[in-house]
Amino acid sequence: MNNFIFENATKVYFGEGCVNEYLACLLKQYGDTVLLAYGGGSIKRNGIYDEVTAILEKAGKKIVEFSGIMANPTYAKVQEGAQLAKENHVDIILAIGGGSVMDCCKAVSLASRYEGDIWNDFWMHPGVINFKPLPLGVIVTVAGTGSECNGGAVITNEEKKIKTGRDYPQCNPQFALMDPTYTYSVPVKQMISGGFDILSHIMETYFSGPNENNVSDDIMEALMKSVIFNLRAAIKNPQDYTARSNLMWASTMAENRIIKMGKKCDFECHNIEHQLGAYTDCNHGCGLAVLHPIYYRHIYKAGLSKFVKFAGNVWGIATEGKSAEEIALAGINALANFIKEIGLPTTLRELGITDKNLLKEIADSCGISAGSYKTMTHEEILMILNECFE
Amino acid sequence: MNNFIFENATKVYFGEGCVNEYLACLLKQYGDTVLLAYGGGSIKRNGIYDEVTAILEKAGKKIVEFSGIMANPTYAKVQEGAQLAKENHVDIILAIGGGSVMDCCKAVSLASRYEGDIWNDFWMHPGVINFKPLPLGVIVTVAGTGSECNGGAVITNEEKKIKTGRDYPQCNPQFALMDPTYTYSVPVKQMISGGFDILSHIMETYFSGPNENNVSDDIMEALMKSVIFNLRAAIKNPQDYTARSNLMWASTMAENRIIKMGKKCDFECHNIEHQLGAYTDCNHGCGLAVLHPIYYRHIYKAGLSKFVKFAGNVWGIATEGKSAEEIALAGINALANFIKEIGLPTTLRELGITDKNLLKEIADSCGISAGSYKTMTHEEILMILNECFE
Repeated sequence: MNNFIFENATKVYFGEGCVNEYLACLLKQYGDTVLLAYGGGSIKRNGIYDEVTAILEKAGKKIVEFSGIMANPTYAKVQEGAQLAKENHVDIILAIGGGSVMDCCKAVSLASRYEGDIWNDFWMHPGVINFKPLPLGVIVTVAGTGSECNGGAVITNEEKKIKTGRDYPQCNPQFALMDPTYTYSVPVKQMISGGFDILSHIMETYFSGPNENNVSDDIMEALMKSVIFNLRAAIKNPQDYTARSNLMWASTMAENRIIKMGKKCDFECHNIEHQLGAYTDCNHGCGLAVLHPIYYRHIYKAGLSKFVKFAGNVWGIATEGKSAEEIALAGINALANFIKEIGLPTTLRELGITDKNLLKEIADSCGISAGSYKTMTHEEILMILNECFE
Repeated sequence: MNNFIFENATKVYFGEGCVNEYLACLLKQYGDTVLLAYGGGSIKRNGIYDEVTAILEKAGKKIVEFSGIMANPTYAKVQEGAQLAKENHVDIILAIGGGSVMDCCKAVSLASRYEGDIWNDFWMHPGVINFKPLPLGVIVTVAGTGSECNGGAVITNEEKKIKTGRDYPQCNPQFALMDPTYTYSVPVKQMISGGFDILSHIMETYFSGPNENNVSDDIMEALMKSVIFNLRAAIKNPQDYTARSNLMWASTMAENRIIKMGKKCDFECHNIEHQLGAYTDCNHGCGLAVLHPIYYRHIYKAGLSKFVKFAGNVWGIATEGKSAEEIALAGINALANFIKEIGLPTTLRELGITDKNLLKEIADSCGISAGSYKTMTHEEILMILNECFE
């Protein structure tokens, strides 16, 4: 097992009714002005907005609204939020939503307490945070990114066409309220792409060195099987509380740093998808679904024993009479079949990318992961994107 | 999944060389006086004492020694440590050892900042900690209790013949330094009983309600298989770094609260073993090994589907042509065979308990777990102890 440091300061309140039970009490230790942050307004349609604002008003809080946070949140939106927070002397940010809202608010929590350019000082390059970011609490409404229990934030700089993320422990939310019933109203398509994002986070950690017996890998196999099982159950019945609870907690477990312990982590598919997103604004989970099987067919020979393990332990592929390569490919095919079964796209064309000429520019803009079994080149990423095209 | 609250504030530094790399830096934020706590002196024989004191001296720290912490630490020992900490105006406790040393020091961290009787106010009854305990850092030398990442402390009141534990998040260590090579010199017998303690923590959580599909159960199956595999590997070669790393991290994962999320937790075997320990001072892991299979034969019918899952998913028991009861019992037998295989005791007589008349008094003193599949009575606990006798 590689050496590691683990910390996670976020306090989680999980289960039906948790917002009503704990929110007012949690906000007592902060000042009166709350930056209420959310996305496109779905929380107004499903009643969460009314529930939360009633709690805030009863608690005597002053609400400053910061709405319209988009999927793939932009640096411009971060600056807008920071400006609002500064002008209104906000005491705490309360973010309601999924990964985009949470990520945007983590960046706001830094930018509102920092005079310089956070994009340059903390996203383009790793920075040192020697100040206290504005406190952040989150109410999770979508299971996917697991952003509620880490300090990671993926931000898109539209001007520079770069979408990139950093994880600063100082940006971990102070608290996360997670009510699985809040995810019931998420459109099924979005639930599925969120579910695939969870699976992707686990796979990108699992398929990385060191290649040795590691309890983190064992935990990941359990998590992958759970996500596959519960995503199928939730598609069948979106109001299956047990399935939605398991998906919600698995999304946290995939990104609360636990499974990364002792691992290098790959995240090359995330690197490529981030650039697809920066150029085309495609859905994150859908982009990952297109990329994963094709990326894995490019690297599996370099991590053969792990792909054999994946096939047997996660997908139950029978191994008798098959070569290691055949077993590994059968596992990747099982993943590809699952992607089709749950209705995710399998080509870039389905994501709305029609201009094949764009692919070279996208490939050249991708980061190269140091943790992959096989280190990519921009040429090989272009090959992958071409194979993904249709 | 049952509703839950999760928090874990301990920061972990894991891997070979971590003490040398991080200890001095970690202590910088505390004052100069360190209560250096340890057990019977094995750290003087294996060189850890010299390594740590050299680091403390170089950092200009004043060392107050608190040694001789026994297995099953007593309330009297806690009071001794608190007295030392108060008299010497200690700024931080540095505990070096396994569960006994860490547990004792958590109680010291409370007692040295509290004027009342901590046994009565925090152990006999759950208390409210509205003060800041003395900070505690730990250096782990034995894998077993997982005490490094929780606020739990099991203390024995010799006078009252009660051994009991409570978990207060405020007692979580500030930091835990975990170097797997520090566990190399642990005698093999103690390594094995520590390994079984890990397995017991996981089983006592796994075999509890609610009986539903729960990702925490899936994670536990992965952890159990990992402990079984790596304990065998470490017995074969005690200096197998990978095996010792996995055991060490699995012990943390079993008790850092993660696997308890959404679960009731049983811990009836721990309740019974604690009273065995209070009356006989027997080794904790050995006591658990004697109890587990017999306790499970008493409760398995009430949790049949879970015992079937345990047999198949943890022990690989073939299920074809067998009834659910047969499969469940085969799983319990596999556990019993593993206990024999690794050389743990199977009777109370082997633990040095020769007076059968004592058993009724022990049984009557046991706590009753509310989370078990089948709630015990003191009569049934006595039946179990009688069956364990020889």
